[in-house]
Amino acid sequence: MENTLKSFFEPSSVAVIGATTDVGKAGYQITQNLVGRNFTGRIYPVNPKNDSIFGLACYPSLSEIPEPVELIVICIPAPGVPGVFRQAAARGDVKAAVIVAAGFSETRIPERIALEEEVVSIAKKAGIRVFGPNCVGVMNSANNLDTTFAPPRRQVPGSMSIISQSGSLGASILMFAGDQPVPIGYAKWAHVGNMCDVDVLELLKYYRDDDQTAAIAVYMEGIDNAREFMEVARDVTKTKPIITLKVGRSDLGSKAAASHTGSLAGSEQIYEGALKQAGVVRVNTIEELLDTAKALSAQPIPRGNRVCILTEAGGPGIIAMDEIGLANGAARLATLSEQTKDKLREILPPMAIICHPEGYIDMSAAANEEHHALALDVILADPGVDSVLLMSVPPSFLEPNDLAEAVVKVKEKYDKPVLTCLLAGDWVKEARLIMENNKMPTFDMPERAARALINMNKRSAYLRGTQNERSN
Amino acid sequence: MENTLKSFFEPSSVAVIGATTDVGKAGYQITQNLVGRNFTGRIYPVNPKNDSIFGLACYPSLSEIPEPVELIVICIPAPGVPGVFRQAAARGDVKAAVIVAAGFSETRIPERIALEEEVVSIAKKAGIRVFGPNCVGVMNSANNLDTTFAPPRRQVPGSMSIISQSGSLGASILMFAGDQPVPIGYAKWAHVGNMCDVDVLELLKYYRDDDQTAAIAVYMEGIDNAREFMEVARDVTKTKPIITLKVGRSDLGSKAAASHTGSLAGSEQIYEGALKQAGVVRVNTIEELLDTAKALSAQPIPRGNRVCILTEAGGPGIIAMDEIGLANGAARLATLSEQTKDKLREILPPMAIICHPEGYIDMSAAANEEHHALALDVILADPGVDSVLLMSVPPSFLEPNDLAEAVVKVKEKYDKPVLTCLLAGDWVKEARLIMENNKMPTFDMPERAARALINMNKRSAYLRGTQNERSN
Repeated sequence: MENTLKSFFEPSSVAVIGATTDVGKAGYQITQNLVGRNFTGRIYPVNPKNDSIFGLACYPSLSEIPEPVELIVICIPAPGVPGVFRQAAARGDVKAAVIVAAGFSETRIPERIALEEEVVSIAKKAGIRVFGPNCVGVMNSANNLDTTFAPPRRQVPGSMSIISQSGSLGASILMFAGDQPVPIGYAKWAHVGNMCDVDVLELLKYYRDDDQTAAIAVYMEGIDNAREFMEVARDVTKTKPIITLKVGRSDLGSKAAASHTGSLAGSEQIYEGALKQAGVVRVNTIEELLDTAKALSAQPIPRGNRVCILTEAGGPGIIAMDEIGLANGAARLATLSEQTKDKLREILPPMAIICHPEGYIDMSAAANEEHHALALDVILADPGVDSVLLMSVPPSFLEPNDLAEAVVKVKEKYDKPVLTCLLAGDWVKEARLIMENNKMPTFDMPERAARALINMNKRSAYLRGTQNERSN
Repeated sequence: MENTLKSFFEPSSVAVIGATTDVGKAGYQITQNLVGRNFTGRIYPVNPKNDSIFGLACYPSLSEIPEPVELIVICIPAPGVPGVFRQAAARGDVKAAVIVAAGFSETRIPERIALEEEVVSIAKKAGIRVFGPNCVGVMNSANNLDTTFAPPRRQVPGSMSIISQSGSLGASILMFAGDQPVPIGYAKWAHVGNMCDVDVLELLKYYRDDDQTAAIAVYMEGIDNAREFMEVARDVTKTKPIITLKVGRSDLGSKAAASHTGSLAGSEQIYEGALKQAGVVRVNTIEELLDTAKALSAQPIPRGNRVCILTEAGGPGIIAMDEIGLANGAARLATLSEQTKDKLREILPPMAIICHPEGYIDMSAAANEEHHALALDVILADPGVDSVLLMSVPPSFLEPNDLAEAVVKVKEKYDKPVLTCLLAGDWVKEARLIMENNKMPTFDMPERAARALINMNKRSAYLRGTQNERSN
């Protein structure tokens, strides 16, 4: 058995078993998604009732496809699935299968459990890796592969990859993220379903080794193999960040999760401790999951926890200060050198508030793009500063794109993370895109930028802690 | 002195003292905003250097405007301001003035404090009410009035009104809200500046009596007259909700707030207790401020705290359950009657999870629009349910607009709040607008919908508590 999941994410060809022109069915939307999003590989619809689907030749069975098939996506009813695997085994070229069909072990019906076991046994002998059953499979923004039946969605490439224990939630947050005024992109995406073969752990390892993935975001309802998860997570977080929204934080949530996936929810305290020990950054909301993964995938890790807040407007600055003040020491305000403060006094408008309190600079609404750029430069050059949170509400006389270009140029000179919040709706949309395209992540709200930065600091502290352990 | 702020929000005419064609200046943008956004009243630019500005006749001085002037917006340097007030007093028709100019008491320079006192004294004698100095004034979505110099912004009418102690933050969150895929609207908006005359308290009372305002959102840095604030807030919250993002929640935030507005920040514990006692709903983020104000302005108050969660997808359901589970009893899951449960079993797809745990219904991804509508109807009819959180990730075969129309029709039959979260990016954008236009607020994320509902329950509990006090 080949120890790679590459055939799921980068297949040269995909056969859709159960492709159909029947609009209400999964096989319709899956074929449409592959065709309509311009998947770069070959697509073979399979359905004995059709000659062609979406303008593609349709084959009566998997056996009759005359070209090589690497990945099969199965969306026919469960009882027919073992037959498909037998055909796949007979062909000899199929490397991977996504079983979209439900009605297997998740029903807890003995015959259906046996059906899943039968599939696994055929697949194993034939060396075919399996996603599912009861899953929507994978997406890859690099080749436009999408095996899900999610509705139309904007494809936004990025460098975070996602694992979701809920197919609909996982797909929907991607749709939401891609349709934001400043879209949040992704690299790879996976929903695992029943995990009869490929599981969360193997995906974590695959993402660890994937060049397109810089940070891993996980929506998690529960894990059964906690010890093994810990081991894998601890290994992965050495090189790449894992950020998780682990639900079941309350008793009510745990109970709902148990009735959803049937997973043993486990005690909240145990999860909290285990995730922390494994270096996993835990978040509380979907937005925080996306924000933190975006920050960690686009920025260097801060070397220490000394944050400087550089703001053009008091309100956002105070909001960010509150978040840092409530972060239980995960981040703290930097102490700037006297030299830095002198330079800031020289550069900034007379109304600027410099280091009241320490590490906090309010440039005032009189700050133009040059003030922003000069101040950022001086602050990033200070060895007492590990990261910067830059916030601005550009007034009508400050051209947002000029501002973006000026600060991007400064940021590039340093290997320190700078998170930004330009807060003025579509007035700053293009400016934010300029920053995003230059590895300078932007966030919708000051509190969200601050939390992402705090979470970066948690990862930094974990990495420094494990290094100290090793050197002791 | 007329005890009304109507002339600020609904003036029949506005004169802009310091209107200019000089792009970098406040007087340019203010005039452009009034003209470009089609303010429904008359506009008189005043500047001795111009004959016309933006196609409007420009007058050399306020004295020389031959038509009646109700509101003046002053954006010339501070020393010239008393002269403008003398002209206004001599005219006799000016009722209200927004002093955009800074350089008064906020500088803490004795002469500048005296300058402000001089202005106040002239205004008082002439019966002219004053906003500011050092403020950007007001906006009103009903007549497109906008005295600020904020950059271009989409005008979205709504029924929450805003008071901000930060002009740039206040304006920027409105820009952000209006440019969202599903925009968040507002009724009236105000930034108070130095409060030499009109203050937060008077605005609260004005909004209380304003027909367009259903909920009041306040961004607050600090208040000096705590006792009086408590008294007014306690009175206002009897009839309309006040939601506040009070910053300075941490020591760092307090210090930053103190250096921003110079306001005595006061102890966090004292604020927390005082706001609660006055029935003010306190929130932690800008998003929660907008979400909660939106929920409270569009929905009836729940009669009790018994929430039913009705979801089509497990993930969002669990996330919402976690929020309720962590809300310290502010909301709790409803116990449905046996009759309700029987009906739900009859109506819903066989895979539906009904009341595991109690009050939680996962209709499953097989639920179509009819399932949504029927289930919502049965649940709202149950006297044991005070409010419903409805969540759905419409799959490709569920037409979102049909879904929206079906649930709107059911919702209209009941006087109970229903908050919704359709989570699928632009695929559900139009459906969300249908719901929004029918007084059924939608939220971006399940956790945000849940928090808004929890905050509605806090208001409900406060109102019931004060009723009990009165009846005891």
